[in-house]
Amino acid sequence: MISEQMKQLVSGSSLIRAMFEEGKRLEAHYGKERVYDFSLGNPNVAPPKEVEEAIQSILQEDRANQIHGYMNNSGFEAVRHEIAMYTNEQFLTQVKKDHVIMTVGAAGGLNVLMKTLLNPGDEVITFAPYFTEYTHYVHNYQGELIVIPPNPPMFQPHLQQFSDAITPRTKAVIMNSPNNPTGVIYSEETLKGIADILEKKQQEYGRTLYLISDEPYRELVYDGAKVPYVLNYYKNTFVGYSYSKSLSLPGERIGYLVVHPEMEEVNLILSGLNVATRVLGFVNAPSLFQKVIGKTLRCKVDISEYKKNRDVLYQHLTSIGFTCLEPQGAFYLFVKTPIEDDVEFCAKGKEYQLLMVPGRAFGCPGYVRIAYCIDHERVVNALPSFTKLAKDYGMIVEEGE
Amino acid sequence: MISEQMKQLVSGSSLIRAMFEEGKRLEAHYGKERVYDFSLGNPNVAPPKEVEEAIQSILQEDRANQIHGYMNNSGFEAVRHEIAMYTNEQFLTQVKKDHVIMTVGAAGGLNVLMKTLLNPGDEVITFAPYFTEYTHYVHNYQGELIVIPPNPPMFQPHLQQFSDAITPRTKAVIMNSPNNPTGVIYSEETLKGIADILEKKQQEYGRTLYLISDEPYRELVYDGAKVPYVLNYYKNTFVGYSYSKSLSLPGERIGYLVVHPEMEEVNLILSGLNVATRVLGFVNAPSLFQKVIGKTLRCKVDISEYKKNRDVLYQHLTSIGFTCLEPQGAFYLFVKTPIEDDVEFCAKGKEYQLLMVPGRAFGCPGYVRIAYCIDHERVVNALPSFTKLAKDYGMIVEEGE
Repeated sequence: MISEQMKQLVSGSSLIRAMFEEGKRLEAHYGKERVYDFSLGNPNVAPPKEVEEAIQSILQEDRANQIHGYMNNSGFEAVRHEIAMYTNEQFLTQVKKDHVIMTVGAAGGLNVLMKTLLNPGDEVITFAPYFTEYTHYVHNYQGELIVIPPNPPMFQPHLQQFSDAITPRTKAVIMNSPNNPTGVIYSEETLKGIADILEKKQQEYGRTLYLISDEPYRELVYDGAKVPYVLNYYKNTFVGYSYSKSLSLPGERIGYLVVHPEMEEVNLILSGLNVATRVLGFVNAPSLFQKVIGKTLRCKVDISEYKKNRDVLYQHLTSIGFTCLEPQGAFYLFVKTPIEDDVEFCAKGKEYQLLMVPGRAFGCPGYVRIAYCIDHERVVNALPSFTKLAKDYGMIVEEGE
Repeated sequence: MISEQMKQLVSGSSLIRAMFEEGKRLEAHYGKERVYDFSLGNPNVAPPKEVEEAIQSILQEDRANQIHGYMNNSGFEAVRHEIAMYTNEQFLTQVKKDHVIMTVGAAGGLNVLMKTLLNPGDEVITFAPYFTEYTHYVHNYQGELIVIPPNPPMFQPHLQQFSDAITPRTKAVIMNSPNNPTGVIYSEETLKGIADILEKKQQEYGRTLYLISDEPYRELVYDGAKVPYVLNYYKNTFVGYSYSKSLSLPGERIGYLVVHPEMEEVNLILSGLNVATRVLGFVNAPSLFQKVIGKTLRCKVDISEYKKNRDVLYQHLTSIGFTCLEPQGAFYLFVKTPIEDDVEFCAKGKEYQLLMVPGRAFGCPGYVRIAYCIDHERVVNALPSFTKLAKDYGMIVEEGE
């Protein structure tokens, strides 16, 4: 009936479904207001008002056939030009419109890349904790995902282990900074280290090694933190971006890839990405929202909402004895579980109506991810539940006991 | 560098690119007004005004986070419900919202289906002439596309050849009616024949065989022609639909799949489609346009524009000696070339600024496809060029000669 691979994928995803169903059950039992769902990366902060203004002005200015019609599979040239210019302005790069490919979100972009690059059996390296969809994106094209173990407590990738993992079958590395689930920004030192290793191994194996930087959280950083731009460190680099978080448009599936202008055989690569966009059935990124991006790419959501959530949660959790890094970006806290079994810890959390995702879902057992992209009031109301959880594990002792 | 498969795809698509470049060269030489580009299936008729009205009312009525946010990977339930109800109303089916999966256009839907169904080596049958992207959609999942030769002059699929082509490795059949490139609607007799053969072969091989009907042109029919609805003939049927043509929204990438409610193991299939939508990187069909469809699915473009083009072209071409079927649907004429070599014929057409696609691009040499989804005035202005072409091939003799 369905394919063997899909049977496995369906039974794997039924675990996530079970979690979702459990959340629904809790809501039915306790009321929606009293369930604290920290499990989803679905932004609660509204898109900036410029998004709707852009839609209105496009509907007024452009012909409907042009707004909603086909364009080059790589996207509208004017929009790609805007993105190239803005990239150069921010990062002092030399990107031209031809080096920008509009994609159906970052997920679409990564699939287009894998389709373009991978021969069956090629290895793609990533650093735990990591977004587990990468596994599928690599498997879709018969590649193998090689995961470098997590490097707590700071979660900067372990460079020696990375270097040792590169083989003659390695084709690419996927990195994600600011990171889901840790909120860590990979430092300039890390990027330089990765670049050095890639340069050396390219020489050693006489084979091109690609660095792929998945950056949907690039604009979501706190306290003036800077995210080093990977294109400035290594030539065979692709950057995948999405407006899902920076403009709160996850349902619209709009993002892009940037290809380093000095990449080896750059024109062949660009043709490959164009063809992959078509043959995978994306055909092109949604047309109206390409045009919206052309007008709003300098805007972003009000991240002070996320910062407020981060601050109150980080402050509370550490004050009651939990260990975690203060996230520099994204909207996740990655908290060490007081017991080894993160799945058991998540189950315990549900007794206090707390929904969290076990770290092993990101290749990092012994931690939980708390997604704080939910209403601030809900975050505040959830604090006593975290306190109860801490008490259960003897982390704090009630007065009088 | 890029994958071996992608190298081949890029060099294959450079032929199409060359044609496109040639068109640009002709436009630069003769002026855009004097080049008659019949090569693209990009609708020229404007979307109905209800599309913009729907966008406006959604922007007013719904919260921005809800409009542009994540939903179930299979799509907004309310929209899927509307599509199910409208399907039942039109075709007396028993489809529920769960049997409708919103997709990134028909191309996205077909990829989601192939990912869900195909094991490596599985065979998928289609009938020439056919939309050649099917080859890629099947190859993406290591399947093999088996093409049943064309059956001129009426282009109803050859049923005996179809039956003979089914093997123990056959997994599915893709059909496309109204057909690109012929404009033919597969008759009820054809559908019954296909269904009978599939039933028989399912029994013979003890294996499920799926019928996939790709129907982006279903609403584009002339003279009151009816397109039989495949769900009513065979249980293991999927219908792929797209609003690219019926609402002139090809750039927005919005369509859906319908799964027969009585399909074997229907729930497993539905889970598979949901997972495939996610893991292939579509994640979900674009959210605003899902909602737009919820409000406009009963509308369609003004097809009288296409009919006017069809009538004047069909009338003119047959009057000067060309042979073709009068299309019942879609916006293509499929014309027999007066010489065997359709590529040479297309090259000759360019001397009169006519751009057409050779039939071999659809698995049917000896024909050309003329896409008449362009401005009527341009169609009328092109008629003398067709006359000159006919004269070149001695089909008509100039007076006095």
